[in-house]
Amino acid sequence: MCAVYTGILLYHGFSEYELSVLVSVLKQGNKPVVFIGLDHGLVAGEAGMPCYPQFSINQVDSTQLDSLVLPGVDDFEHLVDHHNLKNFLENLKGRELLIGAISSAPYLLSMSGLLDGKRYTTGLTREQRKFLATFDEDYFCEAPLIIDEQVITARGSSYVEFAFQYGESLGLTFDRSWYGR
Amino acid sequence: MCAVYTGILLYHGFSEYELSVLVSVLKQGNKPVVFIGLDHGLVAGEAGMPCYPQFSINQVDSTQLDSLVLPGVDDFEHLVDHHNLKNFLENLKGRELLIGAISSAPYLLSMSGLLDGKRYTTGLTREQRKFLATFDEDYFCEAPLIIDEQVITARGSSYVEFAFQYGESLGLTFDRSWYGR
Repeated sequence: MCAVYTGILLYHGFSEYELSVLVSVLKQGNKPVVFIGLDHGLVAGEAGMPCYPQFSINQVDSTQLDSLVLPGVDDFEHLVDHHNLKNFLENLKGRELLIGAISSAPYLLSMSGLLDGKRYTTGLTREQRKFLATFDEDYFCEAPLIIDEQVITARGSSYVEFAFQYGESLGLTFDRSWYGR
Repeated sequence: MCAVYTGILLYHGFSEYELSVLVSVLKQGNKPVVFIGLDHGLVAGEAGMPCYPQFSINQVDSTQLDSLVLPGVDDFEHLVDHHNLKNFLENLKGRELLIGAISSAPYLLSMSGLLDGKRYTTGLTREQRKFLATFDEDYFCEAPLIIDEQVITARGSSYVEFAFQYGESLGLTFDRSWYGR
């Protein structure tokens, strides 16, 4: 079987608005998606939207994924050095996946080595990046959105551009006017 | 007890992106929300996001609501003249609720009489409105967003302005820069 799915990670506190245009672009482009939780059960988004991931990171067959999306989280203390999530992400190293991470989510890549040697941006401040001690400042770019090979990172407020770039990088066709652009 | 909640209706095919900035604005403004389904069980959004409403329209105590949001639905055939939804909405007539309906959702207001005598806009075309036969064309406005007393309607592509207007009408404080504005 071919890897055709985009995996969408849903963890407690994920930002609904940072993700919603992107999933809509994927839908427009007829891209199959799978919503993945850290474990079983309900996940409440940052604004309280109760979501129910289809698989957990332990269940999902990651060989079926050709791409992955990590939404931002306002308070991500519960994800810092999260054992299972780190394992899941580390196992993707060396794979040709298109990875998108927005707002604070580039931290999740950095904690798993997936940001090594990649230029990136993030909504996290210099102080936060220093405190987390997983980021390489030499690769940080002061920009709303950065693409480095297969890794797309963005600030939270650039959620629409992030969605468009992700859809383009997947070669999808979609109508930008849906989103007022 | 005071009516303090904003009810967010979640039905199959609801547009995640039309709703996501609005729920984020409500969260920023510390407005309590409750997610309401047409019945029990999972609801898949237009882009496939699996959501799990907290209450059904039969369960929720509508006297606790001071406001209600109806997201758009791309294919809303399953909602046309929906008996329980119509009943739920008709029972809100005469209440001082702030109602927001975007894209195709003004149809749900029109089928329940909640749009009677109100100026409105919608993403539905003239042909669609004529076919549905519940809209009064004299009150239709060719505009991205319309406020008439307590009813806010908008086109889908104006989802950010819709969210801002809804938050303002509730008197909430929120930071627009989160959404790149």
